[in-house]
Amino acid sequence: MISTEIRRAAVLGCGLIGASVALALRRTGVHVTLSDRDPYAVRKAERMGAGTASARGDRPADVVVIATPPSTVPGVLREAQARGLGRVYTDVASTKAGILAEAEAAGCDVSVYVPGHPMAGGESSGPGAARADLFAGRRWALCPHPATRPDAVRLVTELVALCGAEHRLVRPDAHDRVTAAVSHVPHLVAAALAARFAGADETTLALAGQGLRDVTRIAGGSPDLWCDILRQNAGPIAEVLDAVVRDLTEVASALRGAEPGASGTSGVPGMAGTAGTPGALAGLLVRGNHGRALLAGARPAGVAGGRSAAPKAAA
Amino acid sequence: MISTEIRRAAVLGCGLIGASVALALRRTGVHVTLSDRDPYAVRKAERMGAGTASARGDRPADVVVIATPPSTVPGVLREAQARGLGRVYTDVASTKAGILAEAEAAGCDVSVYVPGHPMAGGESSGPGAARADLFAGRRWALCPHPATRPDAVRLVTELVALCGAEHRLVRPDAHDRVTAAVSHVPHLVAAALAARFAGADETTLALAGQGLRDVTRIAGGSPDLWCDILRQNAGPIAEVLDAVVRDLTEVASALRGAEPGASGTSGVPGMAGTAGTPGALAGLLVRGNHGRALLAGARPAGVAGGRSAAPKAAA
Repeated sequence: MISTEIRRAAVLGCGLIGASVALALRRTGVHVTLSDRDPYAVRKAERMGAGTASARGDRPADVVVIATPPSTVPGVLREAQARGLGRVYTDVASTKAGILAEAEAAGCDVSVYVPGHPMAGGESSGPGAARADLFAGRRWALCPHPATRPDAVRLVTELVALCGAEHRLVRPDAHDRVTAAVSHVPHLVAAALAARFAGADETTLALAGQGLRDVTRIAGGSPDLWCDILRQNAGPIAEVLDAVVRDLTEVASALRGAEPGASGTSGVPGMAGTAGTPGALAGLLVRGNHGRALLAGARPAGVAGGRSAAPKAAA
Repeated sequence: MISTEIRRAAVLGCGLIGASVALALRRTGVHVTLSDRDPYAVRKAERMGAGTASARGDRPADVVVIATPPSTVPGVLREAQARGLGRVYTDVASTKAGILAEAEAAGCDVSVYVPGHPMAGGESSGPGAARADLFAGRRWALCPHPATRPDAVRLVTELVALCGAEHRLVRPDAHDRVTAAVSHVPHLVAAALAARFAGADETTLALAGQGLRDVTRIAGGSPDLWCDILRQNAGPIAEVLDAVVRDLTEVASALRGAEPGASGTSGVPGMAGTAGTPGALAGLLVRGNHGRALLAGARPAGVAGGRSAAPKAAA
């Protein structure tokens, strides 16, 4: 059991992430109130045991979790603070710098706002897909403002631990650059691959294997939600996309220079993989190997060393 | 038990695929001889129970399985036929039209050659990664030449069934176009994504989640083998790559027009997802959803209806 100051939580937004946070908190005995602009979502979450619908006159929560689409977070935060819904606020949106800047510009009290982002999700959306263990063993980025109070950060760190995740302190702009690479661009690339199969014939589908299913799995997410996410992190995403496009363009050009069925690799542009300087094709495959090895070998959260006493700061 | 004419098989090339075919055939009681230019690979496969090393004076095999890199297949086939190693020949390379044309040009007897491609593999290579059930429930394309004898096709169809897979007759050029989309381009795209993480810092790796691991899994394959594969199917791959690059370039450009943190979507290029004509971003995500739904819903091999009596022909 984690010793915590969190007795009451208010979850605003009962989608996959909000309802999963609520379920995880309920499991540790926290009192949870639920709200959503869609009354059906609230009833569904209630029936799943995620808490009770919020009502006028609720006592202020120790922590308010804003789990609405990224572009709505600043407005929801402002209104929640104006209504005094809680003493500390956090959100779960997958972009941070723009939301924080907008919240500040809108006059929100950022001293008690701890922007957050759990590194978990699923292809399905809505409260029906929620699970109490969605965040178990996952990392959860926290991106406080320099003016955010340490006790607010500590409280949200406890919230993360109650959800079974491991928090990580990251600067908002660094978070957005990293998230563009680890989440947003992979989503777009998976979509661009999957898009090739809209209207695919039966032979094509018959020959599609597990590799392709893995690569395109995340392309199943909601276009509306993802448009909102991607727009919020447009700059960092465009930069990473440029690099991907550059690599693929070079490879296509190298392949155009190759004669299918020609024997030997000499004189084939981009193919001098066995010579001193690797060509575009071999070069990309080797870099892909290196990146993949790092990703595959990266320590999953919660595997070794337990929860560290001191929060880790990262630029 | 499948009634079969296959009593003796010769497997040339003891990598992942060759050794797995050998293991699968041994399990059904077929006598298997093994060869590889690397004596260690042959000994390793022997120790795993995949068969016995080939020797001068071996009786001709009912079927010879060529499991060497794509560019070497025509030469290996020619030599094997010149030495009279068997009465029917097949291969397992993931490209078909170029190899078949080259084999014909090299004077191979294509009447007893049935080009094949099992839709299975793994990130690991070499005989140590081989498994008797690697092909269980998978599809296996067969791409005979118009001059290939029906009894040769029937025999290789039996080989596929002995390996637990479901055969599919496909024209060589159609096979190569489909394989570019379902296998080769996904490999390159996974590599281009994984390449972004060569030299990644610790924070980036800490925030990488399961979605990214899925998207980049296939980028772990051998660069040498993949250079060889991709070169053999250069034209069809370049065409699919062009389409992926076009989509990603449009999205990057649409994102560049978007102001991070701007509220509302009106006037944001590529973002008019809720208007009549979807913008580039929403359009790609919607097409990605459609393609993903088809891929996820495609009937895996061997699930329904048993093995069909009549081979299915596909253009």
